[in-house]
Amino acid sequence: MKDHLIVFDTTLRDGEQSPGASMTRDEKLRIARQLERMRVDVIEAGFPAASNGDFESVRAIAEAIRESTVCGLARANEADIRRAGEAIAPAVRGRIHTFIATSPIHMEMKLRMSPDQVVEQAVRAIGWAKEYTDDIEFSAEDAGRSEIDFLCRIFEAVIKAGAKTINVPDTVGYNVPEQYAQTIRTLIERVPGADKVVWSVHCHNDLGLAVANSLAAVMAGARQVECTLNGLGERAGNAALEELVMAVRTRQDVFPCDTRIDATQIVPASKLVSGVTGFPVQPNKAIVGANAFAHESGIHQDGVLKHRETYEIMRAEDVGWGANKLVLGKHSGRNAFRSRLQEIGIVVASEEHLNHAFARFKELADKKHEIFDEDIQALMSDEVVTPDQEHYRLVASRFHSETGETPRADLTLSVDGQETRTSAEGSGPVDAAFKAIEAIASSGTELLLYSVNAITTGTDAQGEVTVRLAREGKVVNGQGADTDIIVASAKAYLNALNKLHSKLERLNPQL
Amino acid sequence: MKDHLIVFDTTLRDGEQSPGASMTRDEKLRIARQLERMRVDVIEAGFPAASNGDFESVRAIAEAIRESTVCGLARANEADIRRAGEAIAPAVRGRIHTFIATSPIHMEMKLRMSPDQVVEQAVRAIGWAKEYTDDIEFSAEDAGRSEIDFLCRIFEAVIKAGAKTINVPDTVGYNVPEQYAQTIRTLIERVPGADKVVWSVHCHNDLGLAVANSLAAVMAGARQVECTLNGLGERAGNAALEELVMAVRTRQDVFPCDTRIDATQIVPASKLVSGVTGFPVQPNKAIVGANAFAHESGIHQDGVLKHRETYEIMRAEDVGWGANKLVLGKHSGRNAFRSRLQEIGIVVASEEHLNHAFARFKELADKKHEIFDEDIQALMSDEVVTPDQEHYRLVASRFHSETGETPRADLTLSVDGQETRTSAEGSGPVDAAFKAIEAIASSGTELLLYSVNAITTGTDAQGEVTVRLAREGKVVNGQGADTDIIVASAKAYLNALNKLHSKLERLNPQL
Repeated sequence: MKDHLIVFDTTLRDGEQSPGASMTRDEKLRIARQLERMRVDVIEAGFPAASNGDFESVRAIAEAIRESTVCGLARANEADIRRAGEAIAPAVRGRIHTFIATSPIHMEMKLRMSPDQVVEQAVRAIGWAKEYTDDIEFSAEDAGRSEIDFLCRIFEAVIKAGAKTINVPDTVGYNVPEQYAQTIRTLIERVPGADKVVWSVHCHNDLGLAVANSLAAVMAGARQVECTLNGLGERAGNAALEELVMAVRTRQDVFPCDTRIDATQIVPASKLVSGVTGFPVQPNKAIVGANAFAHESGIHQDGVLKHRETYEIMRAEDVGWGANKLVLGKHSGRNAFRSRLQEIGIVVASEEHLNHAFARFKELADKKHEIFDEDIQALMSDEVVTPDQEHYRLVASRFHSETGETPRADLTLSVDGQETRTSAEGSGPVDAAFKAIEAIASSGTELLLYSVNAITTGTDAQGEVTVRLAREGKVVNGQGADTDIIVASAKAYLNALNKLHSKLERLNPQL
Repeated sequence: MKDHLIVFDTTLRDGEQSPGASMTRDEKLRIARQLERMRVDVIEAGFPAASNGDFESVRAIAEAIRESTVCGLARANEADIRRAGEAIAPAVRGRIHTFIATSPIHMEMKLRMSPDQVVEQAVRAIGWAKEYTDDIEFSAEDAGRSEIDFLCRIFEAVIKAGAKTINVPDTVGYNVPEQYAQTIRTLIERVPGADKVVWSVHCHNDLGLAVANSLAAVMAGARQVECTLNGLGERAGNAALEELVMAVRTRQDVFPCDTRIDATQIVPASKLVSGVTGFPVQPNKAIVGANAFAHESGIHQDGVLKHRETYEIMRAEDVGWGANKLVLGKHSGRNAFRSRLQEIGIVVASEEHLNHAFARFKELADKKHEIFDEDIQALMSDEVVTPDQEHYRLVASRFHSETGETPRADLTLSVDGQETRTSAEGSGPVDAAFKAIEAIASSGTELLLYSVNAITTGTDAQGEVTVRLAREGKVVNGQGADTDIIVASAKAYLNALNKLHSKLERLNPQL
């Protein structure tokens, strides 16, 4: 019997901290449900002390998720830990994950604490956490650059105090596999009580080695990997869940353990995260990139390929490619729509919401022959914005562009329920639409990114537009989908403005 | 004195084999010049026997490049090797790279040859190659799944025959670092003559381990890494040049060697490859992703960051971020335009070409305040399509969309020099434009991908549209850039049709 390798997904915490990847509570819930469906062991749902919004999200996930452990992050102080404890209270299985920096540079520059004070604080943190749960994880922030003797000392202390999982993050992505594995091996050998806890790794991808470092640590005895879908995360991101899971599964001849992940849920999960955050997955991304299994996509390599298995180490269908089939069309009824929503994990708040969504679905089905899961997801992303978040809304539009003339947009917007007309010219119809909106909003934002992806193939596909806006160091992504790309662009811009309008300040921890 | 780690870039060969990443001769030349500027040691320019177009591209690169070695790939047969020899003849330093499969499954299923026959064929191949150059590389295709004894035997034979570089590819991306390093170590220990050759690795990223496997092999004694920009390549791609180079450089405390790469050219090279192929780089891609150095982009992490160096292991400027400054504007003259083209490595074929490009530049400067290097690159990508490749061309357009009406496109196209008008309605203006084009072209293609990226920030940025079309298993990418996204879309679609129109059949080897 092989060991169980625990998959700890932090897409909703570390992943969401990427500039521009912030998610609403409903988006987080949708992703959490997909993680549960994929059989992730632990879902790190957020950092409850960061903001009221984060607290509410973690709490909502703790209420909704029954199978996976729901984890809240907390700095090693009383207020953070109590906040995390309250947020995870409704969970069937709740975990508190507390952390403190242990590298000389961090202790001195950031914490301004002595090593003795850091150990003492960590032990007290475990004590507070124990009031809420027995499932306590402790992280030594920037462990990759910490002194091994000090790591042994602080880990021994927190294990004695009651920590059940010990995490050794490579916060700045500086480690190389052999060396990182050696660190894990040394810790497991030297720390008293090491055999009573699960050793965990959390790797960043600055040098492209997050997955390799994690796997090297697994060979050295780690039994929890912290990871994100698509490798989302600050800077170059975290270790990619899909690569870890499939490397371990494909190479069972080498690894002494396996995960419990249902790999057929990987591609749908990847698409969901990419859709929600607006972060594209590059075609040559392992496992989840559009080209990762190019043999599968009907493209034949000019007869070089005599036998498929000659070049195949995994099967596309095993990781969920091709699972999204044509599901609904013009003649699908309300019940078919409702049950498909349930199947893909979208929960509708009320009958009124469902009616509204169904009407939008019928409108789309008039314009587009075949409705795929991705179309429904895009439709519902528009839909889940609750009215009180929706400061601006697009009511009607008219666009005209012609060779030799300046492109022009005429819009009718609803601003806090009041209809207003606005027009502008621009270097293109999208620019004109944005300028028309700004003529009313005067948001003072800067446009950092504009991108469009067709949600499905075919020329009548919906375009999903992502717009990234920044104002005073705050970055938001807006999304909009429509068969008309200019309309989708205007919706995405308004969505981003609505997010800026509702967003509260919050903290981002560095693990 | 540290060893020299040879960087062998195969963006133009293995990278170009990705479905949809095929490049024109001029695009390949532009990338080759950037590789030379970056001080890549060996540029694998293509597979001359694949098609006449490939032969011409390799020959043009062999003529243009003076500093880097130019390499042509050839199967281990006389015709392929003579073709490669002729293609690299003009090079200052030319290399022939010949390969044959050595794994049981490939020898039996693909080659239908006995192991003895395979060794004999490999030795004969080296003999033919020697007629053209002393710089001969031999690859054992699918070495990762070959028997070690057989590898030792064939490598000993080709070294005796005159091969100077021995490459050990992990063709299907199945290896894990420790095991791969052990293979390299064993080969270097056991193969007679191992000390007289350079050992090379070529890793694929199916499990996300291409870079880690390459680096493990370097620790085991390999001194050439085969790689591509952005990790481009079939399926999940090859080892990413930028990650290999920066991991080795950042961890000089661990690695016994270093490359000669000018890392400040990495980001411009990455952008060039992404622009030419239309393959986006995901924001969380290490080194070259837009978020890889997010601290640098003016985004401050809410005061968590007390000292920048606390979280920094590389500097963004060291890999070329921020190097693209505002270069030209409305009042820039013809000479400024010409010299900027030279600086960013674009060679204009004739004065007539330059005049035409400059007129297009002035047009753009009227619509857009600030012209960046990326704008010029996009402008010139349109420009380099020579008239004989341009079967279809957009002359004029008119687009209209309005809430409650069906979007409509009216186009004037030039078809082989003849102007024709065409109109269509669609689910959006882009769909209408594509349908109007198809009303004339009746191409029978399928639209696989549609994406748009803003080339620079700001609402007046140009949109760069990528359209991927497939017909009978042949896949092409078309690009088009314009401040009007619908015009850019129409241009991209026509560009793809032009490529389909001119493309010849060719072979893609699997290494």
